[in-house]
Parts: sequence; structure tokens; C-alpha cells
Amino acid sequence: MRRECNVAVVGATGAVGKEMLKILEERDFPIRNIRAIASERSEGKTLKFAGEKIKVEKLDSSSFKGIEIALFSAGASISREFSPKMVKAGAVVVDNSKAFRMEEGVPLVVPEVNPQAAKSHKGIIANPNCSTIQLVVAINPIHKFAHINRLNVSTYQAVSGTGKEAIEELKKQTEQWIEGDEIIREVYPHQIAFNLLPHIGNFLPNGYTEEEMKLVNETRKIIEDENIAVTATCVRVPVFISHSEAVNLQTEKKITPAQVKSILMNAPGVILQDKPEENIYPLPLETAGKDEVFVGRIREDFSTDKGINLWIAADNLRKGAALNTIQIAELLIKENLI
Amino acid sequence: MRRECNVAVVGATGAVGKEMLKILEERDFPIRNIRAIASERSEGKTLKFAGEKIKVEKLDSSSFKGIEIALFSAGASISREFSPKMVKAGAVVVDNSKAFRMEEGVPLVVPEVNPQAAKSHKGIIANPNCSTIQLVVAINPIHKFAHINRLNVSTYQAVSGTGKEAIEELKKQTEQWIEGDEIIREVYPHQIAFNLLPHIGNFLPNGYTEEEMKLVNETRKIIEDENIAVTATCVRVPVFISHSEAVNLQTEKKITPAQVKSILMNAPGVILQDKPEENIYPLPLETAGKDEVFVGRIREDFSTDKGINLWIAADNLRKGAALNTIQIAELLIKENLI
Repeated sequence: MRRECNVAVVGATGAVGKEMLKILEERDFPIRNIRAIASERSEGKTLKFAGEKIKVEKLDSSSFKGIEIALFSAGASISREFSPKMVKAGAVVVDNSKAFRMEEGVPLVVPEVNPQAAKSHKGIIANPNCSTIQLVVAINPIHKFAHINRLNVSTYQAVSGTGKEAIEELKKQTEQWIEGDEIIREVYPHQIAFNLLPHIGNFLPNGYTEEEMKLVNETRKIIEDENIAVTATCVRVPVFISHSEAVNLQTEKKITPAQVKSILMNAPGVILQDKPEENIYPLPLETAGKDEVFVGRIREDFSTDKGINLWIAADNLRKGAALNTIQIAELLIKENLI
Repeated sequence: MRRECNVAVVGATGAVGKEMLKILEERDFPIRNIRAIASERSEGKTLKFAGEKIKVEKLDSSSFKGIEIALFSAGASISREFSPKMVKAGAVVVDNSKAFRMEEGVPLVVPEVNPQAAKSHKGIIANPNCSTIQLVVAINPIHKFAHINRLNVSTYQAVSGTGKEAIEELKKQTEQWIEGDEIIREVYPHQIAFNLLPHIGNFLPNGYTEEEMKLVNETRKIIEDENIAVTATCVRVPVFISHSEAVNLQTEKKITPAQVKSILMNAPGVILQDKPEENIYPLPLETAGKDEVFVGRIREDFSTDKGINLWIAADNLRKGAALNTIQIAELLIKENLI
């Protein structure tokens, strides 16, 4: 018999929260009761779920009783304040913020890569950052075969990674540009329509952005190998959904492009899209709405003796956030971890 | 006394050709007579130059007499057919196509980097590819100080690199998207509005695109160092003007980000834009229309012991094409090479 759970989505009205509700429904997640929780601003709004209307409740720690799985996507400060209370009230939290990702003892899980890590959870499991998830799904099978020593990633990240206000900003700025009106900036410090911003997250003293350091640190934690050297440049691009990544990797053992293709063809959660002669390669526009991580443009990097280039694209709201969170929740049920 | 020349622009009605005429005028290039040459389709059209109207002539090798400097930007096959005839008629050709770039004996020149190469010309001087020019202007000063062993470049290239039809396509697709109309593709095999195409130029048997191999081969020829190992991933982005590049370089001699900044602050043709704490870094939108190569996001790459990350942006129609061509022509006059 399938174990049914009481599930709460915290941050239910955001870009990722909405996607979570959609995916819970699509995947027929075993739900006894669902609660949509958001900030006071959204209290009383209704959302559709499985043909029924559910009322949005405001976040209130006195009402957490009975929740068994809580999916958080309401920002790091909300997670820091309310996740421990949720755990105290008896739930397991899968948290999609940066709050606990690098905390020792908190598993950081991508089910295709390190499902075993979930077993040691103490109430909170962290969902990695969007750009990291798609990277590790694609490279972990290569790492297992050839051991990756060094990774250099340049990202091309969609505005939906910032949230629904940023989706609105790209739309509005595009319309303003078409109309010849003044371009209004509210979310980003510079115009994003027809532009690129090499700036995702705050800048740190070492000159990297938070997003770049997430790729560096989270990759190592998920792959469980502190020796993988990673560097990254993260760039926001005028695309709505799906992050793309140009990845250069150097391995311990020589691996050919043909071997990489054959490994990725059978890798969990990966779709190989690599027929350049037919104009087939991953495109963010076409991966939007899909569950898998798409990989193509696999080539030897002949600037070094054991190098490979890849091009990766995946839906940042789904595999990069909501879907991976729900896959973790499914893992919890399957492995009796709640 | 200033030496005045008879100048022809071949491909005068294209995106780069128009920019050439604009820049010749802006820089007060010493012109005795200017001729605008294009395909039969454009014959008889008028273009403005220095307050006067000039009639577009069709390309006809019987009428090359008297031309001293010919600036070609009409595609490789036109260059292959007509450049030798132009040289025979007495002109020096500065060619902005790929036709002669890698040909032995033909100088491939970026005036800030290898002006000396121009001296050995035999009638044709090649202008490098747009993405290469901005790269070498930024990295050559670093190479001189620390010797670059390896370069990995991910590009973010504007549609104007494809030509004026592609500028039109991005505009139209954006309007179609706003209106909710069907998105029509004519220039690119996939939608470019709100999308990314990891595909610039044709695919080669080694899995690289022509554009990627241009970065590999032209960089070595211009820097005059066959030992620089280069790999690249080239991506078309929905930006109108200015190419951007995420560059990772590994050097022979250790160089710090502070040293890179101090070197680039005094480098010819470079503007350092690197105050991330004030949201100052190169943006394609802001470099459009500018002559210089903008560099920022300079950081140590701590995934290796002697690595540096950079972010570069420059106007692909100006420094990446028309301006560099005209700078070569200026060099020819200055050094008495015509």
C-alpha cells in the first residue's frame, strides 16, 4: 500500500512554489492533505490543485501540526526561521533555499547522484542550487568513469531563476523596447532585455558571486569529492526558462567524446541531444517544461590531454528546483525516511 | 602633409559596410575619393557620407582602377574572387572575411597586438574574426607579462555578427512573441528570441563550429605563438550588438588579479570596468557603439595554481569588424605600406 502524506508547500505563490504544486499533481504524489502556505500578502488567495481549489494560508508556526513533508521555497531567511519549527512540529523539510545547503550534517541531495546522502537527515534536506543540479546530473556519470579533476563552467541563466518579478521585468522591458518607451529597471541593476548581466547573487570578497561559489561548493558536496577543482562564471541572459551551461572538464583517466556519449545515453535523468549536423543540440527554449537534463556539443578539448567540452540545458524551475525537491520527497517515502 | 587615398568599401550596404562608412567619417580618414560597392541588388541606392550622397556601384572588376585601399566585407566567396583582382588593379585590400585569414603569407592584424605583421603584406591583409579580435586585445598584454599556456573561452555573441537579416529576425521574432503570433525562422535554424543557440558557423568533423576553430587558430596566429592551447564554445544570444566572452586562462608565470587590472588599465584599446561592488562590469548593451574592448570580473581561478577569469565585451561591428579594418588601413598609411 502506498503511504500517503500530509504535504505543505511553503512559498506556494512564487515561481518555484507554483511549479511544485503542478509537479505534485502531475506525478500523482501520494498526498492525503495539501496545504499551500505563503506570506501574509497572499493569504486567502486560491490556487488550483488536482481539480480542487485550495486556500493560501499565511506562514504561521502555530499551525504546523500534522504536516509530514514540507517543501520550502520562500527564500533563505524564511527557511532559517521556520524550517526548525516545522521539524519540531514533526515534519521533514526539503528546503530549496541556500540556508542549509552547506551546513554540515544537512544532506544536499540530487536523487540521480547521491540518494544515499538522504538517509542521514536530521529533519532537513537541502535542495541544491538550480545551476548545480543540472551540472551534477550531467557530469556525475562521467566522474564515475574517468574521475573529474577540474571543471570550468560558464552559465547562461534564465530570469525565472530570480523569480516571477524578473520574468515580469524581462516581459515589460521587451514591450517597452518594442514601443520605444523608457526601459524601467526594478529587479536587476541593469536592463536585462537584449543584454547580459555577469552578476548573479551578491559579490563576495574573492570577486566571485554567490552563485559562482554555489557551483564550486555544492558540486563538491553532492559528488562527495572535495578534490574536484571548480571555477565558474555566472551570467544572466534574456531567456525566460531554462539555464544553459558551457562546461569544460579535465579528467584523471582519458575519456573520448564517444565514451561520454555512450555513458550519458544511459545516465539517469539525462537526455543526449547531440547531432549537430542535423542542428540538434540542447536549446533552453525546448527544454523548458521538461524534466530531464539535456546534454550535447560533446567534443574533445584538445587544449589539454584529457579534456572534454559539453553544453547542458535544463528547466531551472523544474529539475533545477521544484522537480528535484519533489524527487527528494519521493525518495523519503520510498526509503521510509519520514 | 597628410596622404589622401582613394578608398572603396566593398559590401557597403551590409551591417559591417555601413559601420565602415560611419567610422571612416567619424575618424576623418584621409579620403580623396570614396566608392561604395555592393551586389547588383543594391546598385543605384544612395548612401550618405560626410554630408554628401554617394551612389552604390555594383561589384565589377573592370572598374577597380585608381582604388588605393579597398575594405572588403561582402563574404568569403566575394573576397576570394575579387580581392586578387583588386590587388592586381593596384589597391591594398583589407579583408573582413574568413577567406585569407589563415593563409600563409597573409598578415592577420589587430593594430594593438601585432602591427608589425602588416609590413610583410603582399596586397591583402586579413581582418580577424570578431570574437577573436576582442579576445586578443584583452589577453595579449597579460600574455606578454605572464605567458598564457591555455585559454578556455565561452562566448555570448550578438545577432549582428550574422548580419542585418539576423538583426531583423531578432526584432521580428520578439514582436511576434509579444503579439502571440507564430514565430517565423528564416536566418537561424531555431528561434533566437528568448533562446540561445550553441551554433555559430558550420559544424566541422571534430565537433567544433567554424567560429570556435577561428578562436583557436586566429588567436595563435595574431599572438604569434603556436603553443597557446585554446578551446572554445560559441553561443548566439538574443542581444543585438556586442559580443561578450567568459575567458579562463592559465599562465606560465603566476599573475594576480591586481596585476591583471594594473596591466589592463594601461593596455591599448582596453577599458577596465571592474567595480562589481558598484555593479560595474562590462555589459554588451553599454559597449555597443564604443571603440574599446571592455574587461571586468577579473578573479583568480583557484581551481588551478595559475589561473585567471575575465569577462570581456566589445562592439562586434566596430572593434570586432569595421573599426579594426579601418585601424589597419590607418596603419598602412602611417607606415607607408600602400
